[in-house]
Amino acid sequence: MIGIFDSGIGGLTVVKALMEHLSGYDIIYFGDTARTPYGTKSSETVKKYALENTEFLLSKGAKIIVIACNTASSVATESVVENFDIPIFEVITPAVELSINTSHKLCIGIIGTRATVKSGIYEKKIKEMNTQSRIYSKACPLLVPLVEEGWLKKPETKMIVKKYLHPLKVRQIDTLILGCTHYPLLKNIIQKKIGKKVNVIDSSIAVASNVKAFLEKHQEVDALLSKKGRCSFFVSDVTEQFKKTATSMLRRDIHLEHVKI
Amino acid sequence: MIGIFDSGIGGLTVVKALMEHLSGYDIIYFGDTARTPYGTKSSETVKKYALENTEFLLSKGAKIIVIACNTASSVATESVVENFDIPIFEVITPAVELSINTSHKLCIGIIGTRATVKSGIYEKKIKEMNTQSRIYSKACPLLVPLVEEGWLKKPETKMIVKKYLHPLKVRQIDTLILGCTHYPLLKNIIQKKIGKKVNVIDSSIAVASNVKAFLEKHQEVDALLSKKGRCSFFVSDVTEQFKKTATSMLRRDIHLEHVKI
Repeated sequence: MIGIFDSGIGGLTVVKALMEHLSGYDIIYFGDTARTPYGTKSSETVKKYALENTEFLLSKGAKIIVIACNTASSVATESVVENFDIPIFEVITPAVELSINTSHKLCIGIIGTRATVKSGIYEKKIKEMNTQSRIYSKACPLLVPLVEEGWLKKPETKMIVKKYLHPLKVRQIDTLILGCTHYPLLKNIIQKKIGKKVNVIDSSIAVASNVKAFLEKHQEVDALLSKKGRCSFFVSDVTEQFKKTATSMLRRDIHLEHVKI
Repeated sequence: MIGIFDSGIGGLTVVKALMEHLSGYDIIYFGDTARTPYGTKSSETVKKYALENTEFLLSKGAKIIVIACNTASSVATESVVENFDIPIFEVITPAVELSINTSHKLCIGIIGTRATVKSGIYEKKIKEMNTQSRIYSKACPLLVPLVEEGWLKKPETKMIVKKYLHPLKVRQIDTLILGCTHYPLLKNIIQKKIGKKVNVIDSSIAVASNVKAFLEKHQEVDALLSKKGRCSFFVSDVTEQFKKTATSMLRRDIHLEHVKI
């Protein structure tokens, strides 16, 4: 199975993208809702959580792991790769590659949680691929709670998005990376506030096509993955809010299983 | 020592009130910042956390416990009382008593996290004390992230507070209970939006005077408490944000100790 974890509901955007790109592949999802959010926590704590989550998914039969959380991808990928000998995907590199390949002016904006922005991982990866790039990033800690509250179209959300994007807009970026898996749920507002001409990069789509390309190249790994169209959802805390959001996002009935971690 | 715990920084409003009411008493604070927030989590999970936090404070020498978190007070007080044989204080009863004693019309509003409001604990306690009361409650899940982001005076915060308070304002409440220890930090905005005539009850002040009254009556417990004016702060995750907010709230230098829980 393809194992995916996130701090909460954000990673479901990656599940959705994987379902579209790799239709029929079995997926096992773990949302660490008892310890969510990760974005405001220290990197040491997030590393510990990421290792525990990976271990849980492996125990359930995952053969590849997608870290569907930008905070964990930023600070914990290295630890996960060091500790587990299977293919590990994270959401940052695919988004960076896509942005470099599609940006004309190489003037790139990044929005994410405080932890992701503070890690500087996007700047580092973009600079490694293209030293000419100009990069501007902005932490947007209120967007995750707004999404989790379901305020996707409220005027307050629009105002807050506008305020957060203002410093990127004045820099006239031509590409904006959504550096948090929650943000695709606000993509319409973000696109409107940053301007129609800016290419908004959705990391959930980027990582899904990355996994697909990998499996096409590595048939031996692909052969390990079951393809019965099943999708299991585990969470460390069962809340109504999660079920409601997941059902409306994936447009299917969701059965949540509680797991103590 | 007086042991206090909260899911994060909110309980510091209780520390501040205790320092004013019981000047010189030694205080040990635990902020469960690695697992914050509690307000969006299930009661089973919050109970588990509350028991672990209490155990930690006892191991550090606490002789009485103040649960300085409304969510934990709502759903976990009973479990904590059952499991530990020392005086346990929570933030709900003192606020309820104060509101009943000072309300003229007995038309009382309550704001809190989703978990607190869903628990119905305030309604239950108010009705027990006075069956004539009319009670209206409103969950305000975005206020905690706004406080933790430090957006205490931003126009977006004012708009969101106004939106949340609107249904209580149309009911013409005369008393409003701040059912979350984060909310005293927004007291000025809340007072302005709900109207000058409404009596806003700050549970951190209510619980501090409650503890004081208890210790005056129970000298044998008071004798167990050291009074050297020391205050120790433990957190399950060390973040800059916590240190910054704590320093500005308590107006003193804070040394944070990390504890794994």
